[in-house]
Amino acid sequence: MASAQFPLVLGLDTFGDRTNDAEGRPISHAETIRNLVEQGVFADQLGIDFFGIGEHHTDDWPLSAADVVLGAIAARTKRIRLGSAVTVLSSDDPVRVFQRYSTLNAISGGRAEVILGRGSSIDSFPLFGYDLADYETLFEEKVNLFAELLKGGPVTWEGTTRAALINQDVVPHTESGPFPVWIGVGGSPQSVVRAAHYGFNLMLAIIGGNPSRFAPFSRLFDQALKQFGQTPRPVGVHGPGHVAATDEKAREEFWPYYEDASARPVASPPRPRSSSCMRSGCMERSTLVRRRRWRRR
Amino acid sequence: MASAQFPLVLGLDTFGDRTNDAEGRPISHAETIRNLVEQGVFADQLGIDFFGIGEHHTDDWPLSAADVVLGAIAARTKRIRLGSAVTVLSSDDPVRVFQRYSTLNAISGGRAEVILGRGSSIDSFPLFGYDLADYETLFEEKVNLFAELLKGGPVTWEGTTRAALINQDVVPHTESGPFPVWIGVGGSPQSVVRAAHYGFNLMLAIIGGNPSRFAPFSRLFDQALKQFGQTPRPVGVHGPGHVAATDEKAREEFWPYYEDASARPVASPPRPRSSSCMRSGCMERSTLVRRRRWRRR
Repeated sequence: MASAQFPLVLGLDTFGDRTNDAEGRPISHAETIRNLVEQGVFADQLGIDFFGIGEHHTDDWPLSAADVVLGAIAARTKRIRLGSAVTVLSSDDPVRVFQRYSTLNAISGGRAEVILGRGSSIDSFPLFGYDLADYETLFEEKVNLFAELLKGGPVTWEGTTRAALINQDVVPHTESGPFPVWIGVGGSPQSVVRAAHYGFNLMLAIIGGNPSRFAPFSRLFDQALKQFGQTPRPVGVHGPGHVAATDEKAREEFWPYYEDASARPVASPPRPRSSSCMRSGCMERSTLVRRRRWRRR
Repeated sequence: MASAQFPLVLGLDTFGDRTNDAEGRPISHAETIRNLVEQGVFADQLGIDFFGIGEHHTDDWPLSAADVVLGAIAARTKRIRLGSAVTVLSSDDPVRVFQRYSTLNAISGGRAEVILGRGSSIDSFPLFGYDLADYETLFEEKVNLFAELLKGGPVTWEGTTRAALINQDVVPHTESGPFPVWIGVGGSPQSVVRAAHYGFNLMLAIIGGNPSRFAPFSRLFDQALKQFGQTPRPVGVHGPGHVAATDEKAREEFWPYYEDASARPVASPPRPRSSSCMRSGCMERSTLVRRRRWRRR
């Protein structure tokens, strides 16, 4: 963690993976979404600190409108913090993203968070007409605008990736200042420095390999914060995980999903189909699903 | 109504007006949003058939992300139908709108509806960089794409107002075919014919004047449906209203708000600040607010 002043918290995030029914057939997108609402509510009951939903636009991960799902979870919970993990800001409009999460923040009584990402998986780019050649510019400009929006008050902004704003009030206003914003970093030092520059939190998105290789990013973040005159900020660690009674049992349960995902041709680095967790510690979403199912019977 | 085959239903819609606190000061955007969730839940308890939220981007009407609010209401209700009233499709992306309402439809177990409008109030145009000169083209093209998305299955589409789609699967898929889509019509026969052409429902958005002048639109809609070989479809009527113990009392309570709104300089036809209702019959949102407040004390 960046500093002892930030308490250790445990969150769960998920891409909203479609699971199979008892006959081994994939359940519908709609049922996947309803299950996710139940999982968020259950996570709150278990005492988990944060529940995050990652944006994707595929048949396996049909969670394209995470904020609407988070709105539903917010309505049935009182304590757990709720957010995106991540919002693919590069292919979205910062104004809409701000509006949706400011609305979620209102509904949840101040429990909204956003993790902004460039999109390590790029399924949203063709869908919204973005060119991968603009990958870096899109993210840089949009983070810049998002930071302006978060300050509150009328925004004047100009860039190349969306229309300019001239003294534009953007609603709904937040109730008590900015909600927490994280930059999801998969391995780019530039992204670490960007997070520090804007005074956003750092979320290290570890999707494979030895977590220790991410330690330098945490140190870089602290140095960069000092250099930009920012106060210390929390660092989060996302990592795929699976919890079972023993380590061996966990490996046995998780491996088929991981192997399946690694073998699939994807436009991005392979990742486990099963879910992941973040910040610190690890707990597995599918464990949550199974517990929930067990409770239902 | 278009036909006796469609049962008479009563809905409420609102722009999410900011109200004043006991000292006469406007409440916060966040509290306005939270009140709206309570109103939607209360409307369900009262037996109202539909609850709709109109998209706006102003300090008076901070409901810019209606779908997130509807997600929260969906999570706390089982029966009432939920939708936009209206979604300003012209300044939004049909793919995102489909994704958000398909997600809402999943969460609510099939209770989502969308009313698509061109934007009789145009506060979203500068915010998202749209030119009023394209007012007609934007709506026509985007309704066209929305109709394609609603069919389900991969979409191939090309236009001038957003990126083309090539055999693109858009998720989440709906569970049981298309959710209801209405075209909000304020007075344009062309919009009536458009609704009939796509086989969408017709929502007559009466914001002032004698409702009887809208009767020809209902007849035109039936004729156009026949001409396009579509089956009969329901017609809805939206109208501002206020319910009180007597007609006189209702006028007395409602008039100051109506007069205030009519006097304000706006970029669109004046409309009552107080809310409105739809489909048939009339009931007033602020009545709902007061009842709710009374229940709280």
